[in-house]
This record gives sequence, C-alpha cells and structure tokens, in this order.
Amino acid sequence: MDKIKRNERLAVMTQVLTASPNRIFTLSHFCELFSTAKSTVSEDVAILQGAMRQFGLGQLETVTGAAGGVRYRPIGMKAYSRDFVEMICDKLREENRRLPGGYLYFSDILSDPELVRGMGQLIAGQYYDVGADFVLTMETKGIPVALATAEALRVPMIIARHSTKVYEGSAVNISYVSGSGSIESMALSRRAVKDGQKALLVDDFCRGGGTARGMIELMKEFSVQVVGCCFVLAVESEKQQVMAGEKALMLLSDMRDGADFSIRPADWIK
Amino acid sequence: MDKIKRNERLAVMTQVLTASPNRIFTLSHFCELFSTAKSTVSEDVAILQGAMRQFGLGQLETVTGAAGGVRYRPIGMKAYSRDFVEMICDKLREENRRLPGGYLYFSDILSDPELVRGMGQLIAGQYYDVGADFVLTMETKGIPVALATAEALRVPMIIARHSTKVYEGSAVNISYVSGSGSIESMALSRRAVKDGQKALLVDDFCRGGGTARGMIELMKEFSVQVVGCCFVLAVESEKQQVMAGEKALMLLSDMRDGADFSIRPADWIK
Repeated sequence: MDKIKRNERLAVMTQVLTASPNRIFTLSHFCELFSTAKSTVSEDVAILQGAMRQFGLGQLETVTGAAGGVRYRPIGMKAYSRDFVEMICDKLREENRRLPGGYLYFSDILSDPELVRGMGQLIAGQYYDVGADFVLTMETKGIPVALATAEALRVPMIIARHSTKVYEGSAVNISYVSGSGSIESMALSRRAVKDGQKALLVDDFCRGGGTARGMIELMKEFSVQVVGCCFVLAVESEKQQVMAGEKALMLLSDMRDGADFSIRPADWIK
Repeated sequence: MDKIKRNERLAVMTQVLTASPNRIFTLSHFCELFSTAKSTVSEDVAILQGAMRQFGLGQLETVTGAAGGVRYRPIGMKAYSRDFVEMICDKLREENRRLPGGYLYFSDILSDPELVRGMGQLIAGQYYDVGADFVLTMETKGIPVALATAEALRVPMIIARHSTKVYEGSAVNISYVSGSGSIESMALSRRAVKDGQKALLVDDFCRGGGTARGMIELMKEFSVQVVGCCFVLAVESEKQQVMAGEKALMLLSDMRDGADFSIRPADWIK
C-alpha cells in the first residue's frame, strides 16, 4: 500500500471516529491502519481536535491509561444548538398539528432521521457522565430518538412493550396508570437487561408522567438503577416530576382546555 | 478566521458529508465555509474520493447539473460486508436464542445501534436507484433498522401501527392475516404519506409474509407504489414471495418442527 498522506489520514480518521461515537480507538489502531508512527498519529489527532473545535463538530478527546486512546463525542455540535430545537418548535407550531384531547401531531418529526439524530445527540450530551448501561424507551414513537441517543452514548437501546410477545421470551409485566388515567401494562423480556445495570429513560412525550413512572417501576423489578430521564416534549403546566433531574428538549403548554398553546426549547439547551 | 489548511478542510468535509448521507452539497457550500476557491474544493473532493475508495468507506459522487454538487453514499462499506452479516449470524446461532413456536430471540440485535447502522446501510445500498420517498415499517422491532435505512437514503421513516392512536390523527385501518394465521389490524395516519409516493418496506422478520402483504395493502389505500421490500431475517423454507425482487439480509431455516435450524447471509451480500 502506498504511503498515506496526512490529508488522507485525517479524512479516514474523521470518518472512523465520528461513525462510532464514544468508542475509544487506540492510537495503535490508526498506526496499523496507516502503517505510520504513533507520533504522527498524535499530530493528526491534534489537528482533528482543532478543526472540530473551530467548526463546532463535536469533541475529540484523548483518553489516557491502559485502555487509552482517542474518542469522539457529538457534544456542543454547532448544528444541534438552541436554534435547531427552535426550528423544531417552529415545525410544531404549524397549523393542523393540533389533535382532539389536547394532543399535537409530531410523529413525522419523531421519525425524521436528520431531526432524530440531532435530538439524540443533544440528549446524549447531557448524560455522558452518568454511566448508563442502556437507553430504555416505551414503544413506539420514542424509539428513533432513543436509538439515536443510545448510538451517541454507544450503549444498547431497550424497548419496553405494551404486552408480552412470543418472540421476546419470558418477560416481566407490570401495570401502571397512564397519563389519561387508564390502567396500562408494560412488559420487558427477562433477558433484555441485567441486575445492577444503570438505565437512561428516553421517551417522546410526557404529560402526567404515568408512562415514565411505569418505566421506573419496571426497572425496579430488574434491580436496575434509573440514572436519568429525558423527554422530547413535555407538557409544562401539568407535568409532575417523575424523578430528580429529569429533562425535556421542548416544553409545551397544556392544550386540553382548548386554549392556544405555546412551545419552547428547554432552558438547558444553549 | 485564519486560512484553513487542506488537511483541516478534508476532516471537516468528511464529517459534514458522511453525517448527511445522500445529501447533495454544492461546492459553493464548502467554498463559503472555508472561504476558498472552487478549484481548491474540487481538489479536496478528489482526494476524499480516493481515500474513501482505498479504505472502503463508501462512495463520494460528484453530481453534475443545476442541482449539482457532491454526495456521500455508504455503499460498499468494508465494515458492512458479508463478514459483518456472517458475524450477526454467529450471534443468532448462540445457544438459548431459540423460543417456543419456532421463534428466535433477536431483539437485542435489532436495537444495537452499531449493528442497526450497518444493516440499514447494507439495505439502503440496494435501493438508491428506486426513488423511494419514504421507508415504511410495522411497529415495533423493525423500527431501528428501518430508521437506519431511511437515514442512509435521506428519506423519512413511516411507522404503521397495530391500532389507531389519538395522537396520530385520523387514520386508515386495514385487516390482514398474520403469519400465525390470526386476523390483525394495521393503521396509518392519513397525513403520514401522500398519493403517488413510492415506499420501500423494511421489516425485521418474515415467515409467511402476512405482515408485509398487509403493508402492501395499506399502501394501496394511500395510492402509494411499493418499490422495494427487505427483511432483516426471513424463513427460507416457508417463505412465500411477497413481491418481486424482495430481499432479506439473513435466511433462516424453519424451526417449527423442532429441528435444528440453520442461518446464513443472503446471496446478494458480497
């Protein structure tokens, strides 16, 4: 193989690192890939760090120690700032999204790959330090954002179901009171998670918090600690706290009285 | 802003292009971003094309014409070749995945972000030329792979539900015969898709093809043409054709007779 030039190395390293967020690559990995010296790769990393910082493309961190190397995290992305969430709010303010019962149609936004990636990276950026072993969501609409969050954190996503499915194997079932006051059930395959793990809850919508409280109950059944909770959209006026430190990307005023609604990005989004 | 060096430009361009697969960026976009000449950006693109080709990181194509520019597609990825699918098959051959009724537990694989990304890019690579306007899947387990496919194709993902939800607005409901022979219903919000669009179906599992046929029926109700269909896992011995040209990533022998099963990557995966 011809000697790889620095600009080619940087292009390849960028793609490899950003395609696997939060994964630590040893410098040796790149030394072998490019058959070049460690000192050279270190210089490459320094250049990448500067370029990503300058263009707001995330953080490239060098990790020291035995398991050390270099790691990319999509934190502080210029593309996914407050303006990004404000743009989504604008979409939600479009006419004809309002549905009976004080609901807002936003399934399209929850399954738009580009918006989902941005929302997931914004959420993940808040939870790199809590050591979540997986992201838990309740089917169905929150799955894409939960997956994007899990990808950015480099952990599995786990989906709680409304009922046990034959193809999930033996499961734990619980009942919970939904936001609308009805009794719902929630099921999770026994083999999906392990005792003592840590869970980050990600869901699309929170009004009364019933579903989220159900997920917390479900995690208790598995002796799993819930280390964080973030919703895409939460109703402000009604919202009772589900757990300490819970977050939402967007806050919505209650619309069930038929009043006009307001929607805004959460304050933590800069 | 200081003048950006070529190696920094290449790193930034790589990240911008690969983060938005199948999106055409004009050269002017990068000229403005780097305040540099078009001829310089053209040289940068040529270098990137070579590096991506050499390391099997996908295709960077220059698109001519009024809406021309440069576009990245994750086609022929070295990381997501037949070996990748064979590795997933090995996981599926692990003990204790077999469930009653001839099912295989693979929910964990269907929501592993790294595996999902690879499966989605492999599927998308087969459908860049069919002009799908969206990827349709049926809740729940196929959603992650469908999303990854949609992201690689840069189209929305649409989720058909088992029943109408209040937060989806008015919907079209159909009944279909599931693989197990029971009558199921499938619902999709009226506003989710438009007359005359083209759909690519992506689902996690196919035994008799009942669900897929249901999705095709559902699309007829919306006057949407189904231009492709791909499953993550399909049962070979039972599989009746759902539509011409349908594909699967992996083929599974029937296990309902309690016999040992075999699983292999589909022949189209090189």
